Formats: sequence, structure tokens, C-alpha cells
Amino acid sequence: MAQTLIAVVGAGVAEAEGMAQAEVVGQLIASQGWVLICGGLGGVMAAACRGGKLAGGQTIGILPGPDPNAANPWVDIAIATGLGEARNTIIAQAAAGLIAVGGEFGTLSEIAFALKLGKPVIGLGTWQLYRQNKLDRTIQVAQDAEMAVALLKALV
Amino acid sequence: MAQTLIAVVGAGVAEAEGMAQAEVVGQLIASQGWVLICGGLGGVMAAACRGGKLAGGQTIGILPGPDPNAANPWVDIAIATGLGEARNTIIAQAAAGLIAVGGEFGTLSEIAFALKLGKPVIGLGTWQLYRQNKLDRTIQVAQDAEMAVALLKALV
Amino acid sequence: MAQTLIAVVGAGVAEAEGMAQAEVVGQLIASQGWVLICGGLGGVMAAACRGGKLAGGQTIGILPGPDPNAANPWVDIAIATGLGEARNTIIAQAAAGLIAVGGEFGTLSEIAFALKLGKPVIGLGTWQLYRQNKLDRTIQVAQDAEMAVALLKALV
Amino acid sequence: MAQTLIAVVGAGVAEAEGMAQAEVVGQLIASQGWVLICGGLGGVMAAACRGGKLAGGQTIGILPGPDPNAANPWVDIAIATGLGEARNTIIAQAAAGLIAVGGEFGTLSEIAFALKLGKPVIGLGTWQLYRQNKLDRTIQVAQDAEMAVALLKALV
Repeated sequence: MAQTLIAVVGAGVAEAEGMAQAEVVGQLIASQGWVLICGGLGGVMAAACRGGKLAGGQTIGILPGPDPNAANPWVDIAIATGLGEARNTIIAQAAAGLIAVGGEFGTLSEIAFALKLGKPVIGLGTWQLYRQNKLDRTIQVAQDAEMAVALLKALV
Repeated sequence: MAQTLIAVVGAGVAEAEGMAQAEVVGQLIASQGWVLICGGLGGVMAAACRGGKLAGGQTIGILPGPDPNAANPWVDIAIATGLGEARNTIIAQAAAGLIAVGGEFGTLSEIAFALKLGKPVIGLGTWQLYRQNKLDRTIQVAQDAEMAVALLKALV
Repeated sequence: MAQTLIAVVGAGVAEAEGMAQAEVVGQLIASQGWVLICGGLGGVMAAACRGGKLAGGQTIGILPGPDPNAANPWVDIAIATGLGEARNTIIAQAAAGLIAVGGEFGTLSEIAFALKLGKPVIGLGTWQLYRQNKLDRTIQVAQDAEMAVALLKALV
Repeated sequence: MAQTLIAVVGAGVAEAEGMAQAEVVGQLIASQGWVLICGGLGGVMAAACRGGKLAGGQTIGILPGPDPNAANPWVDIAIATGLGEARNTIIAQAAAGLIAVGGEFGTLSEIAFALKLGKPVIGLGTWQLYRQNKLDRTIQVAQDAEMAVALLKALV
């Protein structure tokens, strides 16, 4: 049976705290025996992949451009799509669940697609979504990397 | 020169107030000489297209499935993509700007893509985005359809 | 009901004969009341659009890049997808049938997708496909633009 | 550095000879230390993956639908895209080179995209492409699986 893919989504440029969290998330994903899937570039994506490799796991990068060498050095399998930002939809579709660490508008698009597709999304310092001034609680909020992975484990 | 495309995004099933707003938005888009682009299905999409046709405008539906006949009756040009929800990225990319009326997670994905691409987004009773408990003000908030189109007109 | 879209596919750089054929094809498509859809760029695409406009028809360009202004001057509705060459699949999916005029490998991809999807494809000096040294006759061969449109008319 | 991905493309339903060839191709790809990428379904795709796993290699399936469990049992990493037939463009883009074994119109679309992108394509009993009654020799023709992999090895 094919392996369980878990996405880590977050900004290509991130601050130290988010980077540290993403690295631990990557380690814990690998420890679960899950394969880490992400956008394959820098920032949170690179930190998560580095964590995954440190813990002996496997990492996949779904790249926007045509060149697999654009992947960060901790990506094992670089899938160059040439689809631009639309590659975000593939990450959300392919993953059994997502952990969002911080993030900008690209991350928000991955969260939104995952929610649309009914995938579990765990947030770690990421977007909060309100409708009519009321918080939408579909994103489950974690306080740290351990809690994020524990919450996701209960859902996939 | 190719015509200016303006997207109306919103849920496929919507309440009366959102439907009424979307219809007026569609009329006003047509009155500006813009072409209305949307996801081509029901709810807010259908209401906006109906408004556009009432005002003598032109409407385009970018459909998720393979069948152009899935478009609502007020779509002039039905583009069946077969790409599923990934068709949302095309709507955001093709439009010069977006007006979001209410909406669910699919609408949020269109908003997020548009923001990622630097397109102006006007919100009419739609998602409010917070980061670190602070409102992100990139979506410009309108109180009614007239204000939504006026805000967008200043930006495209 | 949404209008019937007919695709003209062919190379972005083409010789005089192909250009002349494509222009007549575009005129005849408009005369049928069909909407012309194509890749929106130069060569055969531009010639077909020019023909369509001369005959009072409507033209759509599905562009690979993010900028609608990359469309040729005879495109009415420029849909910038940002999907790169993958936009060829949308042209094949959205059209009720295709007319291929000459063409390179990109054209071949559009033909192949259309055949995969069971759409009628008419060839005008385009690729001939052999399997096991046997000609595959799914592409219907036309001798001129009039015959191409007549063959297609019987099938859509 | 990310690993080298080599695509095997061919029909989802294939005859015994193509299946046997695909299995050997899969084995030889694994023996080269390459990662096998394919459409993830049955027929030639399944045979190639089975060969790859027998030789201790790694296999990736880029699936058209939303469900990773649609992958054949020899796929290690199942990437469910939800993009339908447009997923063929990702296979062509992501691979450093392709080996086409037999195949129908879907395979032809993968070949065409790969040729458009300038990727090496090796044919094993697959489509022959003619223009103006002249064979296009961009597809390199192999007589057996060993020759296919040897030809590709010289090009990637």
C-alpha cells in the first residue's frame, strides 16, 4: 500500500521561531513513518525537510517551476510541475493531512484547498479565519510541534 | 486589446442576501464594460452571471468538470477544464481583480490565490483573515455592491 | 445555453500556407456561429483569430503565462492561466472539436489530449500517427479549410 | 541532490508483450539508481512498477483522481492530483527522460509534452510520428528494454 503523505505548508521566508517549529514537525512526521510532502522550496519547507531527513524520513517537494534542482537540499523526490502557484492544489490534494506553520498568502491557498477537500488541517501560528466576525474552527490550533502531530495523528 | 476580466467568487449555495448582492455586482461589472469571469456553477456564480446578462454584459464560466453543459444558464462562454477544484487558480490568475461575496472554503482558495498573485480583492460579507490575532487588511471591505465595484475600479 | 467552442491548434511560428489556411478556418468557424478557442499566441493561433474577427466572430485565447497582454491582437477574451504548457489540456477539454493546422510538438499534445477525451480532430497538413507501422485514422484528414470545417460540422 | 526521475509511459490495459517489456524496463531503471515515475495505474504502469520493486527500486505514481488508493500495489509514493488527464503533463515535466512502451492516446499526450519540453523520449513499440509523410525521428526507437535504458542513459 502506498505510504501516508503529510504536508507541511508555510512561507518560503520565515522567522527563526517558525523555522525551529517546522524542523521539529518534520522530525516528528518522519518518526511516525509518514512521508513529508511540501512545496520543495526554502523557509518553512526547507526546515521541515531538514527535520525529516535528520529523523531518517523521506521528503517530497512539489515544485512550481520546471527545474528539479530548485528544490531545497533536503528534498529526496523533487517533482517539478511547471504549473506555477497552481501546484499548491496538488500538495493539498495529495496529502492525508496538513500542518501549517505560520505562512503567507500561498500557505493560505494550501489551507483553503485542503479545507475544501475535507482534509484535516493543523495550525501552528498560522492564519485564523473569521466569517461574519465569528472564528471558523475547522483549522485545529496546536501550541507546539508535538501537539500538532498528535492532533493530526488522531485524524488520519 | 483583450477585454478586462473581473471575477466574482462565492459559494455554490448561498442565502438570499448574498444572491441579491451578487446579482447587483454582476450588473455593475457589465455596466463598466468589464467581462465577468466566475466558476460557472450555481449560487453566487449564477446570481452574478444573471446580473451581468440583465445589464447586457458578457459572462465566462471556468468549470471544474469536463462538461460545458454544467454551466449555469447565464454563462455565455463555458470553459470546461476537467481540473477539479484546481480550476480556482485559473479564475484568480485570469482576472484583473476579484469581488468575493460571502463564500466557503472554495471561495477562500480563490481569494488566497488572488492575494498571492497581487490582484486586488474586494470583500462583501466574506472571509476576514487574521494573523497572530491581527486583522490582515489586504482584502478591501465593501458595504454593498456599489462600493465593491467602486473600490475595484480604482485598482484595475 | 453556452456557446459551442471550436479549437484551432497549430504552431506559434508557421509558414505562409498554414497561416492562410488557419485564417480561412477562423473565418468559417465564425460563420458557423461557433466561438474560436486557441492558445492565444502567434502563428496559426493569430491567423485563425484574425480570420474569426474578420468574419465577425468571437475568439478566446487560453494563454500559458500570467499576462493577458501576451495574447495576439485578435483575441477577444484572453485567459491567462499561469499553467505553462499544461494549458494545452484545457484547450482540448473545453472544445467540442479541434482543427489542427500543421503544428509542432505542442500541437501534437493538444491533438493527443483531444483524442484521449474522444473529441473529433480534423487535420490540415498536421501530424500523421502510426502504430506498429499502421496509420491510425482517428484524425480525419481534410484537404482544405472548407473541408475541415465541413467534416467537423458533421461531428459536433 | 534530488534523485533522477525516469518516466515509463504506456497504456492502462496492455498485451502480454508490452507488460513483459515494461517490467524489465522497470527493473533496469531501478538498477541504474533512478526513481521510476508513472501514471500510477494498471497495465504498463503496474508492470513497470512491479519490475522496479523487484529490483529494489523506488516508484512514484502521479494519479489522475483524488484517491491515493487507486494506485497499483507497486507504487511507493502515490500522488493523487485530482487534475484528471492533465496529470500527464506533470509526468512529462517531472521526468528527466521517458520510455514509452506501446500506448494509446494518453501515452501519446505524455510523449508530445515531453518532446515539447525537450526531454529525451525512447520508444518501445510505441507511436511513430510523421509530418508531411516524413518520419520525425525525435523519438529514439529501441528494440528491447535493455536498449531503451541504454539509449536513455546516454541522454540524461
